[in-house]
Amino acid sequence: MIVVKVGGSAGINYDLVCDDIAELVKDGQQVILIHGGSDETNKVSTQLGKPPRILTSPQGYTSRYTDTDTLDIFSMVYAGKMNTRIVERLQKRGVNAIGLSGVDGRLLEGPRKSSVRAVVDGKQILVRDDFTGKVEKVNTGLLNLLVGAGYTPVISPPAISTDGEAINVDGDRAAAVLASAIGAQQLIILSNVPGLLRNFPDESSLIPTIRYAELEQALGFAEGRMKKKVLGASEALAGNVQEVVFADARVARPIFNAMQGKGTVIRHH
Amino acid sequence: MIVVKVGGSAGINYDLVCDDIAELVKDGQQVILIHGGSDETNKVSTQLGKPPRILTSPQGYTSRYTDTDTLDIFSMVYAGKMNTRIVERLQKRGVNAIGLSGVDGRLLEGPRKSSVRAVVDGKQILVRDDFTGKVEKVNTGLLNLLVGAGYTPVISPPAISTDGEAINVDGDRAAAVLASAIGAQQLIILSNVPGLLRNFPDESSLIPTIRYAELEQALGFAEGRMKKKVLGASEALAGNVQEVVFADARVARPIFNAMQGKGTVIRHH
Repeated sequence: MIVVKVGGSAGINYDLVCDDIAELVKDGQQVILIHGGSDETNKVSTQLGKPPRILTSPQGYTSRYTDTDTLDIFSMVYAGKMNTRIVERLQKRGVNAIGLSGVDGRLLEGPRKSSVRAVVDGKQILVRDDFTGKVEKVNTGLLNLLVGAGYTPVISPPAISTDGEAINVDGDRAAAVLASAIGAQQLIILSNVPGLLRNFPDESSLIPTIRYAELEQALGFAEGRMKKKVLGASEALAGNVQEVVFADARVARPIFNAMQGKGTVIRHH
Repeated sequence: MIVVKVGGSAGINYDLVCDDIAELVKDGQQVILIHGGSDETNKVSTQLGKPPRILTSPQGYTSRYTDTDTLDIFSMVYAGKMNTRIVERLQKRGVNAIGLSGVDGRLLEGPRKSSVRAVVDGKQILVRDDFTGKVEKVNTGLLNLLVGAGYTPVISPPAISTDGEAINVDGDRAAAVLASAIGAQQLIILSNVPGLLRNFPDESSLIPTIRYAELEQALGFAEGRMKKKVLGASEALAGNVQEVVFADARVARPIFNAMQGKGTVIRHH
């Protein structure tokens, strides 16, 4: 079982990602795909007169401020537009894909944060109407039911809170929890960069391998959204996934490249 | 097995519909819900600068002109926003709902129309870039897999074409094909009117019962979107569904009312 997370940033080529999945599935591999949609959500939010607001935590992690309206837009883009078009791409390639959000069958579940700390103009504020949380539980029964019947799950946030509310969660960290829960050997995290860069955005400064013990140091190199990918990698390895690879989703054969170690490979030893 | 279709017109109360489904599921009934989203799609389309265009066929049937951009908006509202919020409502009520579009696992499949005939200013035109079609095949294996495992499917268009394209299909007729394929005894079609009205919009002119043989005559009373509901009822009965009920989704206990014959009941004899 391979778990692939593909981001939602500009430049990502979903056709190439789906080409690889089709080849893998035809070879008898079981694949679970988790996808993002941040860039498209920013666009649609702005078009709908609700431009995105990004919260930055005191530790420097960023997240989307997600009130009720934003969660609706988020669901529209992730679970509606992006998910349908990715499933369509896979179906056209002969893969019997099935799209699910984390709300469906309580696939991705966890507590909603009662409040979120954010730094605005140098001051800490407490945001209380934010529908965000963290995945702690995965409905592996549902995934095994579908994969066992020959379906390829295509998953996106939102997730579901313990109280049954739709919540925004970080896709990379959700993928890490899922990969661990399902017992995947490998988690591949594709985005619009070739991997973790020592000097962002200089792509020649790619870090080819990181050991688990070096991950905290690696966090120092990580810029913006890459911080959560490093955190996700750390959580996946702690959850017995053997290898996490950060790789490039703008080029041909993105998943096969990652499987061959092209990108940043993160292992225990 | 009961198949419930709830429309997407203004005034429909999804909380009340979900209350009934929760009660039915707790009583051990198996329910499949199919929902619409037309009113919300009109609003979002307009907000996104792509106001809806309705095509009217020479026979007087209406459908949404669905080019690629419109299909994206359609998927956003139906499979994204509406579906997620209905699944959330059911999950909050203790029902393990799972949202699916017709693209997922090729759940609702049929041919895309190569062109659509429409009447504009009294003249017939041929529309060729329309992604619409008709459901002819239902993945009952997937539905039985999920229902058998205790999930309650919540389904919306788009469907998938024979060539693997996402297509807009009429929800009422899709529900009829689904009810027939799954062997449902009863199909309940809820909307924002109490049933078929002899003199639309006079609600006191409700027609309480229609026999199969009288359906063609009943088409004459049907206004706008009600025409396709009558067509769907006809197709469901032809496909061995024993009873179709048109009922009101604006009032308390909408499904129980329909099950007790409140609305327009359509039967073979």
